[in-house]
Amino acid sequence: MNEIKGTSLIGYQRGALGGTAFRAFDPSRGESIAPDFHSASLAELDRAARIAESAFHTTSRFSGKTKAVFLRKIAANLEWLADGFVSRIAQEAALPEARIRAELGRTCFQHRMFADLVEEGSWVAARLDRGDPQRQPQPKPALRSMLRPLGPVAVFCAGNFPLAYSVAGGDTASAFAAGCPVIVNAHYAHPGAAELAGNAIIEAARSCGMPEGTFSLLFSAGQEIGQALVQHPSIKAVGFTGSRRGGTALMRLAGARPEPIPFYAEMSSVNPIFFLPGALRERGDAIAAGLHSSVTQGVGQFCTNPGLLFAARNPETNALAEKLKGLMSQTPAAVMLTPGIHQAYQSATGARVNSEGVRTLAQVTPTGSGCQAGAALFATDAETFLKRRELAEEVFGPETLLITHNDRTQLLALAESLEGQLTATVHATESDLAEHADLLAILERKAGRIVFNGYPTGVEVGHAIVHGGPFPATSDGRTTSVGTRAVERFTRLVCWQNAPEAQLPEELQAANPLGIWRQLDGRLTRDPLS
Amino acid sequence: MNEIKGTSLIGYQRGALGGTAFRAFDPSRGESIAPDFHSASLAELDRAARIAESAFHTTSRFSGKTKAVFLRKIAANLEWLADGFVSRIAQEAALPEARIRAELGRTCFQHRMFADLVEEGSWVAARLDRGDPQRQPQPKPALRSMLRPLGPVAVFCAGNFPLAYSVAGGDTASAFAAGCPVIVNAHYAHPGAAELAGNAIIEAARSCGMPEGTFSLLFSAGQEIGQALVQHPSIKAVGFTGSRRGGTALMRLAGARPEPIPFYAEMSSVNPIFFLPGALRERGDAIAAGLHSSVTQGVGQFCTNPGLLFAARNPETNALAEKLKGLMSQTPAAVMLTPGIHQAYQSATGARVNSEGVRTLAQVTPTGSGCQAGAALFATDAETFLKRRELAEEVFGPETLLITHNDRTQLLALAESLEGQLTATVHATESDLAEHADLLAILERKAGRIVFNGYPTGVEVGHAIVHGGPFPATSDGRTTSVGTRAVERFTRLVCWQNAPEAQLPEELQAANPLGIWRQLDGRLTRDPLS
Repeated sequence: MNEIKGTSLIGYQRGALGGTAFRAFDPSRGESIAPDFHSASLAELDRAARIAESAFHTTSRFSGKTKAVFLRKIAANLEWLADGFVSRIAQEAALPEARIRAELGRTCFQHRMFADLVEEGSWVAARLDRGDPQRQPQPKPALRSMLRPLGPVAVFCAGNFPLAYSVAGGDTASAFAAGCPVIVNAHYAHPGAAELAGNAIIEAARSCGMPEGTFSLLFSAGQEIGQALVQHPSIKAVGFTGSRRGGTALMRLAGARPEPIPFYAEMSSVNPIFFLPGALRERGDAIAAGLHSSVTQGVGQFCTNPGLLFAARNPETNALAEKLKGLMSQTPAAVMLTPGIHQAYQSATGARVNSEGVRTLAQVTPTGSGCQAGAALFATDAETFLKRRELAEEVFGPETLLITHNDRTQLLALAESLEGQLTATVHATESDLAEHADLLAILERKAGRIVFNGYPTGVEVGHAIVHGGPFPATSDGRTTSVGTRAVERFTRLVCWQNAPEAQLPEELQAANPLGIWRQLDGRLTRDPLS
Repeated sequence: MNEIKGTSLIGYQRGALGGTAFRAFDPSRGESIAPDFHSASLAELDRAARIAESAFHTTSRFSGKTKAVFLRKIAANLEWLADGFVSRIAQEAALPEARIRAELGRTCFQHRMFADLVEEGSWVAARLDRGDPQRQPQPKPALRSMLRPLGPVAVFCAGNFPLAYSVAGGDTASAFAAGCPVIVNAHYAHPGAAELAGNAIIEAARSCGMPEGTFSLLFSAGQEIGQALVQHPSIKAVGFTGSRRGGTALMRLAGARPEPIPFYAEMSSVNPIFFLPGALRERGDAIAAGLHSSVTQGVGQFCTNPGLLFAARNPETNALAEKLKGLMSQTPAAVMLTPGIHQAYQSATGARVNSEGVRTLAQVTPTGSGCQAGAALFATDAETFLKRRELAEEVFGPETLLITHNDRTQLLALAESLEGQLTATVHATESDLAEHADLLAILERKAGRIVFNGYPTGVEVGHAIVHGGPFPATSDGRTTSVGTRAVERFTRLVCWQNAPEAQLPEELQAANPLGIWRQLDGRLTRDPLS
C-alpha cells in the first residue's frame, strides 16, 4: 500500500507505463522528485468509466452499513499510511509535518462522519404519502420517495489540500456515502500523495468486496484526460476544487454535454472582512493579530483566505493598518505549493505594487530562492476599488488589501459590488450590528457563510457547515462541499407509486426496518406506517 | 380583476400598448380571439427585473405566516375568477369545463399546500451545531444553517396547462413560498388566462402589502423577451415547462451567462410502460381499457402521456394489441390546444405511418376541420426500435407505440436504450416482479417515478411526489417541480458562524421560537438549544 509506482489505478488493475511521463516537484529544493508518473490513456479512462458504470449497479444498492464499513476501512488505511504521507507531502507541497498530520486527521474524520451518517440512514429524506383507493373522482396513489445516488462521479483534486480535498477528500467520501463510484483526476503537483491515497482506497475496496470500478485514479500530465472525463457519458456528476479559470472551463464542458450533468466546483473567493467602528475601538490590536494569522496561515493558500478588508477612514483603521503592517513585515517568507502558484503570486502582487491608487504598506522580500513568497499588505480607497474590478480578484497567497470608505453609502456600495463568496466576515459590537442591518442583508446574499468576530480560515466539518456560495465562489451555490450535507450533491429524487413492499428500498418499507426518520403524510416520525 | 386589457403587468403598473400585438386563437372555431395583447419591451422587462431584485430584499425576510397569507389570498382570488377562467380557457385551449375547474382546483390546492408548508416552517432544514470555545487546538465555532431564497425567479408557462403549470402554477407558488419574487413569461396560446391569473396575483400582492416587483407578467409575441429574461443579471433561477427544443435552448442560455443560474425545465418524456407476461394473462382486458384512457385523456396532451408500450411477442400481447386497437379506433377525434401542436402531431403520426418496420394498428381520421386530432396506435419490433432512435421520441398527442420483444435480453436492451423519463410504469404480478429485478433496476436509473400496475397520467400533488427525472425529462434531474419538495429548487444554503442571537433568523435562534423541526448536533428535534 505504501509503494509509489507511478501508474494509474484502473479499478483493480494498474495503468500502463506508456503515457506521457511527469514528476512531482519539490518547491523547497527546486528539483523534481522520483519516480516518473505515467499519464492515463483515453482508452484507460474509458475503461475506468465503463467499470464505474457497471459497479454503480452494485454500489447503488449497498446498505448504509456496507458503505460505512468501506468508509471506515479507508480511514484506517489512510492512518496506516500516515508516515508515508508526511514524508511525501513535505516534499511535494512543502507543507510542515503538523499541518499534514492535521489534514490527515480531518480526512479520516470526514470518512467516519459520512460512515456514521449513512449507517444511521435518515439522510435519504424518505417520504411516504398514504394512498386512498376510495378517493373520488380519482383513487389517491400511495407515493414513497427518497434520495438515490446519481451514478459515477468524477473528482478533481485541489492543489492546496493534498489530502482533505484530493483523492480521498470530501468529494470522494461524500460520493461513496451516496453510493456512487468515483474516478479521481489526480493533481499533477502531488501525484505521490495521490497514489498513496489511491492505494488506501483500492485496498479498502478489495478487502470490503467492493465491485471493480468502485474507484479509479487517473494520472495526467496535461488537461486532456480531465476534459475527457467530464465529457464521458458514464460520468453523472463532477466535484472540483481549484482555480476559477479551470473550474469554469470544465463547468462549461459539463453543461455543453448532450446530457448535461451536475458540476460542483469550488473555485474563487476573496472572503471580505468588514471591520465596523465599535469593534476596532474595543479590540483593534487583537483584531490585527488574528487577522495577520488568518492571512498568512499556510502561506495564505486557503480558499477562505481573507483577501479584502473594509473599514471606515478614521484613526482606528489607521491604527489597525499600522499594527497589521508591522506584523506582516515581520512574517518570514515561506515556500508556496508549486512554482506555478508562486509565479502567479509574484505577478499579482507585482501588479498591485504598480497599481495606481494602491499603496504598498508592507511587502516582505524573500531571502531564499525558488518558490518563497513574502507577505504583502496593500491599501486603497473605495473610489479606486469600485472603479478597478481587478482589485476584487483573488490573489492566492499571503496577501490582503485594505479598502477604506468615507461613509455608509460607500460601505454599502462596496459590499454590493462583491461577487459571490464562500465567506463574508464582520467584526462588530452589538451596537455596530444593530446599526448595520443593511450591510448584513447584503452579505447574506453574497456569501455561503457569515462569520461574526472571527476569521474565515478553518472550515469546521460537521452537520451545519456550509462551504459553498454564489458564483464564482462555486459553480452551484445551492450546495456545500464540506459537512454531511455534501452527500446530497450526488443524489436525485426517485418516487415509487403503489409499489409492492418487496419492490421498495428498506428506507421506504412500511415497517421502517431501519428505524430512520421519515415524513409520513408530511409528519416527521420514526414510526412505521400503520 | 376579471378584465382582460392585453398589456403586461410590470409590478403594480400596466405595460405599454405599443409592443408587437398578437391575439389568442380559438382552435375549435379556427379564429382569433379579442382583445389584442401587446408584447413587453426590453425596457419593461428590465424594469420588472429591477423591481423584482429590489422586492427580494423584502420578500426574502418575510415570515412563513406572511407568505402563507399571500399564497392563500392568491388561491381565493383564483377561485373568485373561476367562471372567467372557464369561459376564456374553453376558447383559448379548447378544454372542457370540467377539466378547467379540476385544474383550477389543483392550482388553488398547490397554493394552499405551500402556505401550510411555510407556515409550519420546518421545510428550511435548519441545523445547529454547538460551539466549544475550549476545544484544543482550535475553538469549535457555533454554526447554524438553513435554506434561504435564491432571488428573483423567471417562470415560463406551459402550453398544456393554462392554470396549474402557468402564471399561477407550481413554479410560481413554490418560488413565492421560498421567498422569491416571480416574473412570468406568458404563453402566447392562452394570454387571456395568463392575464386573469396575473390580475389575481397582483390583487393579492396589493391587498397583502407585498412590495412592488414581487410579481410581474410579460406578454410576448416572439422569443426575444423570454431569452432576455433568462439572461437578465437580476434573475437568479428559472422554472420552465415546455418542449425539449425550447427548454434546452433556454438551458444553454442560462448556463452560458457570466453568472450561471439554476435552470429547471420539465421538457420531454415518453413514459414507457412495461407489460410483463403474468399481468397480461391475469387482466389483459382491464389493462387495455386503462391504457386507452391514459393515452387519450386530454387528447394525449400530458407530459406523462404513455408513448411507448413494451411487451413480449406472445398471444397475450396480441390480445392486448387487438383490444387496444378496437378502443383507439372508436375514440372520437378531438381538438388540440394549438394549431402548432396539432400540426406537429399530424406530422409525427404521418411519419410513423410511413416508417419502415412500423405497422399502423389504428388511426382515427378526424371528421371535423381545423385542429382535430385522431387517436393512433402503432406497432413495431425490438430490432426496429433499437435501430431507429426517432421512434423513441415524444409524439405529443393521443398516440402510442407498441414494441414487442423476443426475449429477456431484448427487453433489457430496450429498457437500457431509453433516455431519462418522468415516469416508467410496470404492469406485473408479484411473480413477474420477482423475475424481473434487473428490469426494475434499470428503470430506477431512467425515471423520476416508477408506477406499479397503474398509469403515469395524473400527477398527485403532495409531499412524496417526484415530478422530475434524468435529462431530457428535465434539465435538472435532482429535483421535482410538483409537490412540497419543489420549494427547495429556489433556495441555497446559508450558514451563520458565532452569530449573536439577534442576527439570526427566527428559524436558527436557540429558543426555537417557531417550534420547527431542526437538527441539533445532527439530532432531529423540536427542542430549543439548551
